[in-house]
Amino acid sequence: MKYRIIPGGGVTSAAGFLAGAAQAAIKKPGRYDVALVSSPVSAAAAAVFTTNKYQAAPVQVSKKHAAGGTMRAFVVNSGCANACTAEGGLKDAETMARVAAESIGCKAEEVFVASTGVIGVPLPMERVTNGIKEAGKSMASANGVLAAQAVMTTDTFAKELAIEVNIGGKTVTIGGMAKGSGMIHPDMATMLGFVTTDAAISVGCLQKALSAANADSFNMITVDGDTSTNDCLLVLANGQAGNVPITGANGADYAAFQEALAYVLTELAIMVAKDGEGATKLMEVTVFNAPAKKDAILGAKAIAGSSLFKAALFGEDANWGRIICALGYSGAEFNPDIVDVYLGDVKVAEDGCGLNFDEDMAAKVLSEKKVEVRVDLKSGSAKATAWGCDLTYDYVKINGAYRT
Amino acid sequence: MKYRIIPGGGVTSAAGFLAGAAQAAIKKPGRYDVALVSSPVSAAAAAVFTTNKYQAAPVQVSKKHAAGGTMRAFVVNSGCANACTAEGGLKDAETMARVAAESIGCKAEEVFVASTGVIGVPLPMERVTNGIKEAGKSMASANGVLAAQAVMTTDTFAKELAIEVNIGGKTVTIGGMAKGSGMIHPDMATMLGFVTTDAAISVGCLQKALSAANADSFNMITVDGDTSTNDCLLVLANGQAGNVPITGANGADYAAFQEALAYVLTELAIMVAKDGEGATKLMEVTVFNAPAKKDAILGAKAIAGSSLFKAALFGEDANWGRIICALGYSGAEFNPDIVDVYLGDVKVAEDGCGLNFDEDMAAKVLSEKKVEVRVDLKSGSAKATAWGCDLTYDYVKINGAYRT
Repeated sequence: MKYRIIPGGGVTSAAGFLAGAAQAAIKKPGRYDVALVSSPVSAAAAAVFTTNKYQAAPVQVSKKHAAGGTMRAFVVNSGCANACTAEGGLKDAETMARVAAESIGCKAEEVFVASTGVIGVPLPMERVTNGIKEAGKSMASANGVLAAQAVMTTDTFAKELAIEVNIGGKTVTIGGMAKGSGMIHPDMATMLGFVTTDAAISVGCLQKALSAANADSFNMITVDGDTSTNDCLLVLANGQAGNVPITGANGADYAAFQEALAYVLTELAIMVAKDGEGATKLMEVTVFNAPAKKDAILGAKAIAGSSLFKAALFGEDANWGRIICALGYSGAEFNPDIVDVYLGDVKVAEDGCGLNFDEDMAAKVLSEKKVEVRVDLKSGSAKATAWGCDLTYDYVKINGAYRT
Repeated sequence: MKYRIIPGGGVTSAAGFLAGAAQAAIKKPGRYDVALVSSPVSAAAAAVFTTNKYQAAPVQVSKKHAAGGTMRAFVVNSGCANACTAEGGLKDAETMARVAAESIGCKAEEVFVASTGVIGVPLPMERVTNGIKEAGKSMASANGVLAAQAVMTTDTFAKELAIEVNIGGKTVTIGGMAKGSGMIHPDMATMLGFVTTDAAISVGCLQKALSAANADSFNMITVDGDTSTNDCLLVLANGQAGNVPITGANGADYAAFQEALAYVLTELAIMVAKDGEGATKLMEVTVFNAPAKKDAILGAKAIAGSSLFKAALFGEDANWGRIICALGYSGAEFNPDIVDVYLGDVKVAEDGCGLNFDEDMAAKVLSEKKVEVRVDLKSGSAKATAWGCDLTYDYVKINGAYRT
């Protein structure tokens, strides 16, 4: 392992970051549903957002605030997406930023706002503002885990992680949290992801590193093919690690930071895929020896997103024909007659045709909690990996009555 | 009703067409799995095929044969797709055409071949050729229904239909059959569709009419987003109705034929959507007042294909936020702030925001076997309708163990 993983680490592991959380009963009582995370000083901020034409009110407000390049905090609620809520929704998102800013002593424009939950329902603002104030009174470095819990909706576990990386002789910490677990098919952004770091880095370099790392992590997961109205991914870098500030994208320090950031984003993204609604298995699909990166991406995402293969995975049925079929309609360029397909280490198809493979060995691969699918296009050297999960009875159950 | 529907009509209703079927035990015994349909004279032929990069052997062979413009027959088997089967698969498809041609007395090149079932398994050719010979001995106009049964896989009912239409003073019959019911997301073609007519029409006009009608029918249905390797849709026109041959696309006769053909294709496509694997409900999504046809198509197909909305439909949950969300990521151009959404006649969202609608009335709409979703973009006059079905426990069950 290249990086030291901080046990129990998350969004408050990097120097200076504090978190508070509250139980505001936004959808139902008895669970954390408001989180506030702050930096003691201005932090360089970079973010990516959903490409859905419907952009939730907090997305619209946060885009404006993040354009400033520096931020002090972010506030998040679960239980209500504040999407498709018109002018009132925009005011509510602005109020969330203002109340959070008052709690920690900064400007409203320095607060990033995010919401997740049911679309089309207004926020219960009295409970929300009380929740933010309560969270603001409990700001502590130990509360990162509560913040990760507060963003959960149908998630079955909190998704957080922090690592240490040596940059120019200084120990830099990068930590983050994310939420799943339905409406997951990020396109230029993810559902909700928040990363904090004490690295000293310019806004331009931070945005560049984020965009590159996001392309290979959150943009490579899918649970159900539905790109949400609320997707966003934020990185705050407050410089408290004391490294020589990274201001250009060519040096070794930038490369080390970008690689470490990609590691954190990828691990968080995999947690989201693994905890897809109703999922019992994580699917990791790698398409390699592709003519170009875009072909590898198209192929890997189509396979990870195929309802038919996802159901076969749940049934532990080595139905490789569905892998080939998804590859075929993915839009990727390749020669279909030379493609090999592997389930784990079992080669199940060669040169586009089925092999008489060992069904018992394939069954063993499919019985694991993590199943690797590898597709060799034999037409180049590009590669991409996508992550998804199986399609199960519980996915149908969870989504048959989500509002109730 | 503009057309007379022929009771029990199907692929042998048009003058001269005969069908035979056999139980060849291709996947399992005790069911019809081979169908042969013939015309007594050369028929103008038009076809559209899957755009999947993996094209099953019968698709490759039929493309070559259909290029001739006229055909005498088509032969179909279920239980094995003969896809991803290399050179041997091509030989098998050619053998199917040859044996069928010998049975009815024509050239192999005048026979269209189609297969459906598991991908990557070779055809059991001795049983298949015996089946074709047996079918060839039972050719009769009464056997159209057996042909429709022989193409079924996970279908729960045979999909067939025939109508009469007056063209230039003559009664012309158009009849067809189709199979579903998984791997349904046609792209320039459908799973398997076969239409016969006794209209006299040139090959060029027939292909033009087919392409236009297909765009609004089979290309507008989705069950699971997976475009199959075996999709094809064939129309044979044998001229036995005695109408003045249609040789140009500008006259009233062409318009009447194309409209009638579109009706037959649409009804067959709706049957396929309704019988989607595990489905309990048919979903009909109409996007109207769109800036352009392509926007209406993108929006309607995205909504019909959304796993989240499909699961909500199964759960009879009026979760219109998922409709709006799918519209938002569909790629359609529109103004998100003026969109209205209806479930049946209940307006659930206005100007992109939720309404305080009557949940009881919405629940009643959702409890029906057919649920209409209508989306008013209020930005133009284009319109498109897509059909899909709900996502159910049974879809997962059927596809968790399809090969076994």
